[in-house]
Order: sequence, then C-alpha cells, then structure tokens
Amino acid sequence: MSETDAPAADTGLAPDADQGTDQGVDPSYDPRTGEQHGSVPHTAPEHVAEILRRAEDAASVIADTSPATREGWLAAIADSLRAHEDELVRLAGEETGLGADRLRGELAKCATSTVFYGAVAAEGSYLGASTEGIGGDSTLSRWNIPLGPVAVFGASNFPFGFGVIGHDVASALGAGCPVIVKAHPAHPRLSVRLAELVADALDRAGAPVGSYALVVGFDAGLQLVDAAEVTAVAFTGSQGGGMALVARAAARGVPVFAEMGTVNPVFVTTDAAADSAQIAAGFVGSFTLGAGQFCTKPGLLFAPAGAGIFDAVRARLGQVPPAPLLTAGIARGYRVGLAALAEAAHAADSAAADTEAQTAAANAATEPVHGYAVDPQAFLVRLEDLHPGSRLLEECFGPVALVCEYEDAAGALDTLTRLQPSLVASVITGGPGDPESAAVVRRLLGTVGRVALNAWPTGVATSWSMQHGGPWPATSRSGATSVGAGALGRFVRPVAVQNAEPAHLSAALHPDNPWRVPRRIDGRLTLPAA
Amino acid sequence: MSETDAPAADTGLAPDADQGTDQGVDPSYDPRTGEQHGSVPHTAPEHVAEILRRAEDAASVIADTSPATREGWLAAIADSLRAHEDELVRLAGEETGLGADRLRGELAKCATSTVFYGAVAAEGSYLGASTEGIGGDSTLSRWNIPLGPVAVFGASNFPFGFGVIGHDVASALGAGCPVIVKAHPAHPRLSVRLAELVADALDRAGAPVGSYALVVGFDAGLQLVDAAEVTAVAFTGSQGGGMALVARAAARGVPVFAEMGTVNPVFVTTDAAADSAQIAAGFVGSFTLGAGQFCTKPGLLFAPAGAGIFDAVRARLGQVPPAPLLTAGIARGYRVGLAALAEAAHAADSAAADTEAQTAAANAATEPVHGYAVDPQAFLVRLEDLHPGSRLLEECFGPVALVCEYEDAAGALDTLTRLQPSLVASVITGGPGDPESAAVVRRLLGTVGRVALNAWPTGVATSWSMQHGGPWPATSRSGATSVGAGALGRFVRPVAVQNAEPAHLSAALHPDNPWRVPRRIDGRLTLPAA
Repeated sequence: MSETDAPAADTGLAPDADQGTDQGVDPSYDPRTGEQHGSVPHTAPEHVAEILRRAEDAASVIADTSPATREGWLAAIADSLRAHEDELVRLAGEETGLGADRLRGELAKCATSTVFYGAVAAEGSYLGASTEGIGGDSTLSRWNIPLGPVAVFGASNFPFGFGVIGHDVASALGAGCPVIVKAHPAHPRLSVRLAELVADALDRAGAPVGSYALVVGFDAGLQLVDAAEVTAVAFTGSQGGGMALVARAAARGVPVFAEMGTVNPVFVTTDAAADSAQIAAGFVGSFTLGAGQFCTKPGLLFAPAGAGIFDAVRARLGQVPPAPLLTAGIARGYRVGLAALAEAAHAADSAAADTEAQTAAANAATEPVHGYAVDPQAFLVRLEDLHPGSRLLEECFGPVALVCEYEDAAGALDTLTRLQPSLVASVITGGPGDPESAAVVRRLLGTVGRVALNAWPTGVATSWSMQHGGPWPATSRSGATSVGAGALGRFVRPVAVQNAEPAHLSAALHPDNPWRVPRRIDGRLTLPAA
Repeated sequence: MSETDAPAADTGLAPDADQGTDQGVDPSYDPRTGEQHGSVPHTAPEHVAEILRRAEDAASVIADTSPATREGWLAAIADSLRAHEDELVRLAGEETGLGADRLRGELAKCATSTVFYGAVAAEGSYLGASTEGIGGDSTLSRWNIPLGPVAVFGASNFPFGFGVIGHDVASALGAGCPVIVKAHPAHPRLSVRLAELVADALDRAGAPVGSYALVVGFDAGLQLVDAAEVTAVAFTGSQGGGMALVARAAARGVPVFAEMGTVNPVFVTTDAAADSAQIAAGFVGSFTLGAGQFCTKPGLLFAPAGAGIFDAVRARLGQVPPAPLLTAGIARGYRVGLAALAEAAHAADSAAADTEAQTAAANAATEPVHGYAVDPQAFLVRLEDLHPGSRLLEECFGPVALVCEYEDAAGALDTLTRLQPSLVASVITGGPGDPESAAVVRRLLGTVGRVALNAWPTGVATSWSMQHGGPWPATSRSGATSVGAGALGRFVRPVAVQNAEPAHLSAALHPDNPWRVPRRIDGRLTLPAA
C-alpha cells in the first residue's frame, strides 16, 4: 500500500488561449519563469480515428486475457517508470514547477499504485463471479466483463498520479480495457515521454497493439468523447470541465467518471481546539501542499471561537513562501478567485474581513504575471454567511482556505452538512473517546466520500478500502472512486448467461477455478483454496 | 429462488388523457370491458411534502438497523401478501385483465423475491466491508451506506413485480432505504390496497414511521423526482418515460435506475433450425405472454432461411386468442405501432410483406376500442432493412414480433450486434457443442445484459446471478439491475473512514463481526465462521 495525493482542478478540457491550443500545438511552459520550451503537436483527427480502431480491436483481445497476465503488464509499466525516474522527475519539474521531492514521491507512489491495481485484478473479487441452479436443469451464471476502450483525461496537477499514467490508466488496464489518454496541456512534453515508456513497456510485456495510446489537443479530446468506440470516460479536474464532459457524453449514454474539485471541510471539535498552533500548522501544511492544487485540499475549517485558530493560521501562513502555480491560466484564476473571496468575506462581515489580505489580493489580481508564483491566503468568514450558492463556497484552485470560528458546534455542523457535498472531510478531535466525534463523523458521512479523523485530507492511500469519490457533484456518479481497489469497478459491467456450457463462461467460472478467484456458488461465497 | 417475469413499458409518467389524470383522480378501468369502476384521488402536494419529511426522518433510523432486522420486515411483507392472495388477485384481475393464473403466479414470485432480498441483505456481501492498516498507526475502513429515501415508479405491466411491491421496493428496503412509490395509473385501487398491506406489515414488524409510502398522480411523481429528500429513483418502463426521468433528475445529480423497453433479439443457429415448429411455438409463447407486455419480450428473431420459421410462427399465431392490453392508451399505442411496423415492413420489401396483416393492422388503428383486446401479429423483415434508426426497431409494446430469415449467419450476427443494445437475448442452438454457439454468445454479451441459451427471455429468475439490466439505452446506468442480488447495490454507496474508532464504524466492521458478514481484512477476503 502506498500513500498518494489526490487530484484537483484545471483539466485542459477548456482551451486556454495563452497555452496556444489554437495553433495546433500544446506549447511547453516553465511555471517558474513563464518561459516556453518547445511544444507538442496536436493529434490529427484521422490519427485519432486510427487509434480508436486499434483500441477497439485490442479490446476483445484484452478481454480474453487473465487478470494475472494484466498484472504482469502493469508491473512492466511500473518497472519502466522506476528505471526512468531521474529523467521523468526532471522533465516534470520543468513543466510543473512542483519540485523534485514532491515529484519523486509522486512517481514512486504511482509505480506502487500501478502494481497494486494489478494485484487487485489478480485477486479477482472485481470479477463478481457467481453461478447457481435456478430450477430443473437450468443454471444462471454472472460475471463482470470489461467495457471496452476507456478515454482518460489527464489532470494538470498530478503529472504522474492522474493522466498519462496513474490511477485511471492502471485501473482500466487492470480491469481489461484499452486506454486512450488525452494529455493535459500543462505538461505536454512529459506526457509524450511517459506515453512512449508505457507503450513500450506494454509492447515488451506482450499486450496487444492498441492497448494504450496518447492523443494531444482539445479537439482530439472531444473526438474521444464522441467516438462510438469509447465506452467510458475517466476525468479528474474542475467541476466545470467535468460537467461539460458529462453533458456531452450523456447523449449516447457513455458513463463519465468525473471526480471534481469541491470545497472540502475540516471540523475541529471543542475538545480538540486547545492546541491551536498545531492545528493551524497541519491545516496550512495541507492547504498549501502542492501550492494548494489538490482536489482534496481542505478549503474551509470550522473551529470553536475563542481558541485563536484564525490568528494561528495567519501566523503560520507568514512562514509559507510563494510557490508557482501550474499554468498561467491557473495563476490568473487564483488571483481572480482570491479577489472574489476577499470581497465576499468583506461584504459578509466588514469587521471580520481581513482588509490587508483583501488589498493584497486585489492588487495581485491586476499585477502582471512573473512566472506563475502566488502567495497563500486565508480568510475569516461568519457561519451565517455560509449557505449553498455563496461565492465563498466556490472552489478557488490554489493555496487559499477559509476559517469559520463557531460559537455553537451543533449549529456549525448543521450549516456544514447543508453545503455542497465534497470528496472528503477531516475531523480533528480531542483524541479517542471525544464525545462529539461519533456524531460529527456520522453527519459528515452523509455528504462526503471519506472522513479522515485526526488526519488531513490531502493524504490519500492507494489501498483496498480507499474511497476517493464523494456524492454528486463532487463525483459525477456517486459511489465511484478513482483511487483504491474500487477503481476497477468503473470499467466493468455484469453479464449473465443462462444454461451456459463451459465454452460460454469466463474462466473465472470454470469448474477448476484456474484463476483462483473468489466465487459465489449456489448463493454461497467461496474462497480459492489457500 | 423463484422465477419471475420481467417488466415492460408504459410508465404512467406521461399523463394519459383518457385516464383522467387531469381530473385529480386516477380512475380504475377494467381492460376487459373498458368500463370504469371507481377512482383514487391524487396525493396533494402538501401531503407529498409530509411524506418526504417522514421518509427523511426514517432514513437515519433505518440506516442503523441490522440487515437481519430488515430481513424480518421483508418477511412480514411477504407473509401479508400471501395471506391476502385471493383478494389481491381478484383486484388485480379487475384492473389489469391479466388473468388469475398469471396474477397468482406473479404474486407468489413477488413474495418469494421479497424474502430473497432480505436474505441477500442478511448475507452481507452488499455491505462491501473492508479495513486495513495504511502505514504507521493509520487505518482505513470502507463500507456501503444506504443512500436515503428512494422513489419507485411503478410499472403498468407487473402489478406485483415492479411497483407498490416487488423488486425495487424490496431491494431498496433490504439495502436500508425508505421507499416512496408512485402508483401506476393502470391499477390505482390495487396500488392503494397493496400499500395499506405493506405499511401495516412494516408497522407491525417494527419499522419506523416513514419507511414506506404511496403517492398517486403525475404531479406527485414529479414532486418526488425534484425533492431534495429523494436520493435515487427506480423505474421500469418505456424508453421515453425513463429518459424523461433521467433528464429531469440530472440537474441535481440524483441517480435514476431505469430499465427500459427495447427490442430483444433471438438468434437461432443453423443447427437449431431443424425443429421450426417447436421454435415457433416457444417464440410465439414468449412474445405473446402477458399479451406481449414484457420488457424482456423477444421482439426480433433471426433464423436460417429455408427452415420455414416465419410460416411456422404465422401458423402458431393463429392459435393465440386476442387478449386485452392493460390500458386504453397501450391498446391505442399498439394499434398505431402495428400499422407503422406493417408499413415499414412493406416499404422494406413489398414481396415479403404480409399484406393481409398490414390491412388488418391499418384497420385496427382506426377502429373504436372495445375493451382493450388486440390480436397478436408477426412480420417478416429483410436483414438489409435492419439498421439503427429503422422504424422496424422501435419497441412496439404488445404481442407483436419480427422474424428475419438470414442466408448468412455471420452477416446476421454482424447486423444484430450493430442494433440498439437490449436487456436480454436468447440463443437457440442445436444442443451442447453447437459449433456456432460460443461465438454467438460472446458477440451478444457485448450488447445485452443477459443471454438465455435454449430458453426464452421472458423467464427471469430472482437469484444471486441474475442480471436484468443491459447496456444503455436499455438501462440508464449500464451495470445496474432491478432483479437479482445486485439490485441492492443501486441504493448504497461506499464511504471510507480513516483512523476510525469502533464508534465510527458500521457494525459490519466491529471486531467480533456481530452481523456475521464477509469482510476484507488487510486486503484479504474473509468469511464469517460457519
């Protein structure tokens, strides 16, 4: 099991004028300087069509492979990633400015996760194999089959975690589906290089031609969504981008698994608030991690009034240096979003509003961009100003968060659970047995996918029990997850065959259980012999 | 395990002028005579609002009950249905004209299914309970929680199978969700009586107030779809009705699980065709069962040319008496659909078209309705006229089907798999080892949810391995099923808690496994001690 960090907004779905998507190329920029270093051409429509045909041909071949075979393919990808670590981290650094330590960690986690999805496939529970007699000589058998080619839209903020490689690609391949990735324009040169490594590793491991491909450019992405060959779309990014994809794919019923940026809450209980400095340090560390470009970023912290949490957060923020955002567009969006938050916080409560921060934010919004570096920010907001539809609750991608100091824990919890659902919430308690914690966790589970107790939401383990997706609109299909063993389930569907002969069945249901998978026989779940 | 028959079109979603939905009541008609016998008033908006509030209150109470507790509730419902069999069958007969034998069988299957969903809940696999260490002292736990109140839209054609009682209601209650049913206007008096029995049984079994309610009327149904309290919608019926619901619910992201009428194919292999009389008898029996008002009705049979299948089907049809359809609207729709099919078949091939049938159908479309009785029909169509978008492939609800005699099996299979996906397909083979069967089954699994080998599609078992839903647009969410153990999965979603104390966890994950359910511990699936 490995820890990875979760994805966030800016999807590359919407053309970004200053990224040159109108010129038939994705230019490569260094966020630390704003300078361009080369570019990558967009994939021509006829080339996309050829890629789609190959993926469809590969789909039926892959569908016949054993999970253990695909486990081998995924291991080969992981091996190649590890073997090219230095090159990849350098290239990613040039295009994302995320820093070598973060990138080295993300790449290592990606390799571990890639292996994990292979193990999940090989374990075989995802196949849902089941068979029984249904009266007389009749039998009924059911198992999950891969959907077919999957289109993956890469995220800007996780060059290794979500895109050309990472959770969506590995879980789709593990489930038996060919993958076509649409590169995010924030790191085009890295995307091309990663795709070369993946395609080469798959080829050497024996995967069929068409198992994997990369396309570049906005129009190529749309072509994927509209293509009859594509059976599912995976996306991590902004709500706007995700909803646009959902709407476009709805006409032909293709599932879009979009996990989207929302404002993730943190609830600090009465008993926990004593150590405001430590909480502030953890909170600031989490919402400024990766320059705040995580869709699991904690965006709104509720803490008891009188504990001085907001002051502690402000003090801590002073120690956080500016950091470059991923693209000029994201940096501009952050400055505009910050100004809007400052105005909303001010309008909400002129006494509580942080005038200094407002002025800085307002200035920042009009300053010319030098590289894409920005300062982190926090705003104090009143409980009564937090309501569905408030501008305070629009996700601002970058290192900014809100703090709400509550007088009444029950009222704060009521407010919190009426806000838009989100991917994740954290609860900071006074320790085991905190009398408030059970009720708080229970309430929050109604509006999020995951509750992290005494942990910050930005740490996301790739393991059997992870749930990354939250209720709509944090996730386009409630119950889906892009991280953890459940990720494979997005790319399969159950089929049943009545009165099947062995030749009609998945090997998962052959009498001798050659894949050694759990099966339900006549209603009784059975495990393979140890 | 029981056999039940699957649902079909006409949903009561669209107001049906001659059913009086504009007058604030659902009138009750006898389809055998067309005469009205009483009516049932629509539920007032403020009453619907009160029902929604109670359901929301009940949701958190039910979410805390054990699966075994809900198994008891479902058993109480089944007992009450059995105890009132004579009354219910009589009432259903008056409003549906389906005949006492069919209705007695459907009610018995409904009772058995209701018990089955309780057993599925108690078995506990649906909970997906899982927990593991994720490094250091950290743990991660995941399980499925009920979504909350579920709105069920009853079907016209299964008064006991899909609606006020039946698959959707029992699987939602089994999964821990309160249910609000929108009655189908085809059987309003039966709906009210059934709801009384269900509510009473639940009350006596100790279920909380708000666990179950019925609403009547088109506007009440819309109010459910739009209500914040409703977390999922289940529907079986026509594609038009289902898609309207999907579109309406999309704005707030509520999942609609619609299983919709499509043209289900039958493929007869070369080796199977020898016994054309037996195949014709089975086919006619299946597509005229319940007057053809099944969404699993076989609508299009492919058979080798030269075996005389169409002639055998025509001959067999002569032995099938007219049968009343469920409502005046369905009868009118059938006559219009028949005329359209006759015209399309004629336009497609004037030599092959059955002019006699066309004339009859054309006359029927303009005849006044005497009761709702109609004659069964079959049309011969050419392979080359079957293409996506052809009028021949629009579902015609009622006892009509198409026959296509093919020269080339591979070409026929290619055509078949390019048509709209459907819920189910049948394959009639020459017996074990038929050389064509494996390829045919494999191809068909790409476009349906279930393949029945040497069995007709209208027989649907309620068991662990049933898959009733097919790929979109046969089902709004591919992979969902309204029949079989998987039906519970529609009404739950996974949540994860990091570093949970026992008080934060479902009992499914308490150390002593009090519910005795399968669990995944540190990645390893474990079964409760026998």
